[in-house]
Amino acid sequence: MHPLRPELAAVPVTTHAPTPVPASVRDRFPALADPAVVYLDSAATTQKPQAVITAVTAYHSAQTANAGRGTYGWATALAARIEAIRGRAAGFVGAEYPDEIVFTSGATAALGAIAHSWGTAQLADGDEILYSPADHAANVLPWHHLRDTMARFGHRIVLRPYRTTAAGEADVADILAAVGPRTRLITTSHLHHVYGGLTTLAELRGRIDPAILLCFDCSQSGGHLPVDVRDLGADFAVFAGHKMFAAPGVGLLYCHRRVHDRLRPFLPGGNSGVRVGADGLVGSGMPRLLEGGTANIPGILSLAPAFDLLDELDPTAVAAHNRELTLRLIARLRPVPGLEFLPGPAHAGRAVGYGIVSFTLDGISAADLGFVLADAGFLVRTGAHCVPSAEAGAGSVRVSTHLYNTLDEIDRFAAYLTRIAGS
Amino acid sequence: MHPLRPELAAVPVTTHAPTPVPASVRDRFPALADPAVVYLDSAATTQKPQAVITAVTAYHSAQTANAGRGTYGWATALAARIEAIRGRAAGFVGAEYPDEIVFTSGATAALGAIAHSWGTAQLADGDEILYSPADHAANVLPWHHLRDTMARFGHRIVLRPYRTTAAGEADVADILAAVGPRTRLITTSHLHHVYGGLTTLAELRGRIDPAILLCFDCSQSGGHLPVDVRDLGADFAVFAGHKMFAAPGVGLLYCHRRVHDRLRPFLPGGNSGVRVGADGLVGSGMPRLLEGGTANIPGILSLAPAFDLLDELDPTAVAAHNRELTLRLIARLRPVPGLEFLPGPAHAGRAVGYGIVSFTLDGISAADLGFVLADAGFLVRTGAHCVPSAEAGAGSVRVSTHLYNTLDEIDRFAAYLTRIAGS
Repeated sequence: MHPLRPELAAVPVTTHAPTPVPASVRDRFPALADPAVVYLDSAATTQKPQAVITAVTAYHSAQTANAGRGTYGWATALAARIEAIRGRAAGFVGAEYPDEIVFTSGATAALGAIAHSWGTAQLADGDEILYSPADHAANVLPWHHLRDTMARFGHRIVLRPYRTTAAGEADVADILAAVGPRTRLITTSHLHHVYGGLTTLAELRGRIDPAILLCFDCSQSGGHLPVDVRDLGADFAVFAGHKMFAAPGVGLLYCHRRVHDRLRPFLPGGNSGVRVGADGLVGSGMPRLLEGGTANIPGILSLAPAFDLLDELDPTAVAAHNRELTLRLIARLRPVPGLEFLPGPAHAGRAVGYGIVSFTLDGISAADLGFVLADAGFLVRTGAHCVPSAEAGAGSVRVSTHLYNTLDEIDRFAAYLTRIAGS
Repeated sequence: MHPLRPELAAVPVTTHAPTPVPASVRDRFPALADPAVVYLDSAATTQKPQAVITAVTAYHSAQTANAGRGTYGWATALAARIEAIRGRAAGFVGAEYPDEIVFTSGATAALGAIAHSWGTAQLADGDEILYSPADHAANVLPWHHLRDTMARFGHRIVLRPYRTTAAGEADVADILAAVGPRTRLITTSHLHHVYGGLTTLAELRGRIDPAILLCFDCSQSGGHLPVDVRDLGADFAVFAGHKMFAAPGVGLLYCHRRVHDRLRPFLPGGNSGVRVGADGLVGSGMPRLLEGGTANIPGILSLAPAFDLLDELDPTAVAAHNRELTLRLIARLRPVPGLEFLPGPAHAGRAVGYGIVSFTLDGISAADLGFVLADAGFLVRTGAHCVPSAEAGAGSVRVSTHLYNTLDEIDRFAAYLTRIAGS
């Protein structure tokens, strides 16, 4: 990875030119059958391919069982499939070992698990976590919640905020200035959910104590770009299944093996490999230490066809497709009178694009703009975008693309917006 | 409710004789199409009716969106449907207000939420929780986990175990002996997942401080019996969607309004109505205080057709059906040589039945018996059944029924088991 151009990490050098994402891929998404609807809110949730729908239906329609419990074939075959998907997920995110992958109920729960299972186990008074208040609530509130929990019991940890750049990336210079001897964890969005800037923290390498843990929220990058947790040097990373074509209610939590002996159980229950010992709960190892109770079985099963689709298309080609859509969108929006880009690649004039562009339009609130756009069939996200530090009422429009979007849709959207701006 | 016969609470006196569950209901469950398979593991998970499968498929196939985020129709209509289901769920469990219903990722997470959100907020050194070590891990481990968390920070709460009776119910005399001035919560299974005994704690009424909170794990009773959280006097109650015909990965957490101001956030994230205040996180009220991030949307949507089915059949009729199946099963198993019932109605000679019967058979391990039965098409649960206090290797066979099972299946099962026992 280029140490000064981390955005290059998004599209690794490959020896082949990837086959472009075919326009026909859209036909695999039943919910996109109506050509009058232009879905530009994939950063909120992606549409589901037929293969995902089929996998979920199949689970509910035949040999429905619980996993890891029964000794009959329906149950044991299911448990084996889930473990195979765990291995598949490990490969998909670049983990070395399947036991580094925990199935959670989503990315929010995954970040909450880190805060709880690592934080309450490892943090002492005065320890510091570096985070961005401009990140998604899921990567802000769990750390505050942890601080509150410890404060209730008379312990004080420090949450040290860092800034984002005009390009919508974590401000690495600000992070370096904030890092100190009590820094225990730096958490960041890999791809920012509003700004669309990519953060790899590559510039930190060799410049901070390697004992400091790195946590990446890959909710937006997973399925958009090839993500490799080892390239990122991640100790923790989280992914949202529903943002990479799988069903809602399932997430992936990557925990590097080096942290495995530093974790307490998370939401223990049946099948969590946790027992009551003389001095408290005793776990039997990862990943079950952080899994308990009946999982979202169809959600986990739906990851397999989601990975199949992404592998078939090639994650590099998907990244290139989103880049092309994003750059076209930026080029078409830039001349619109009164339009201002939020921080991000467009704002900073960077020739990169990762499928997310946010802006405001002078003279019309984001909410009103959202309604007008929706009436014309353009489905975008408006509001504060789950950023807990955003001022009440502050809002922008976020356009987010994915593999099923086309240049024609981008052009139609930009043309319509231009008309609104001119009226 | 009869103060000395709490089991009567399961089937409230009604002014009508319920229409029996029709045998044709089985046709609505695609996974049960093969008549050679006798599914007797509904306490692990229930089979799914076609209407549930259709609801999940519909969400993934048309107008797929995230809820509570977008301002376009796909998203706002979805959010409204979810709130309608919240109200429906409140009615189903007998809650007075919809804001008493929290959607969780399952019953285990719901019990973990109580331990975390109420426990870390309210418990002081020396406070006591009464629980049954023979309960499901989901109603044992969260309390130990809470104790561990507080102990890490120098605080000591007490978990006081109570016994179960030969009838598989919470031993109310033992609870009364254990209750003291520091008792803050009594937690119990409503219907025990192995013993099949029903516990209402009705005998405690008027005999303990009304400030003591009551928590019911209704994972097994929900959908089996009419459950009314107000009749139970519950402050907290949890339900597992996948054990009442809905999809896995969704649970209900009932929190009586009287505890709403005593709760901290749980796994906060996007859309959780929690913001960062000067002195820590500030919530905007229930139920969002305990909900954060993208929920298992199809799982929540699947609750509606599950409730439809149960309402159509009448929960009283479903309870009567399970009772008939259970009593027949007990009658057929009692003469089997070498068969010993675990604690429960059968063991205690009580003429009640709630769809769960567990036993051992002399000379054959439960695991081996499970394999032999599975070979013959009888799918039952064997092992320690997620009871964390069970001795390693201790195992039994659990047979659990539901509305799609028939007397003929029970007779075939018992006949086959009798043959095994005699060979």
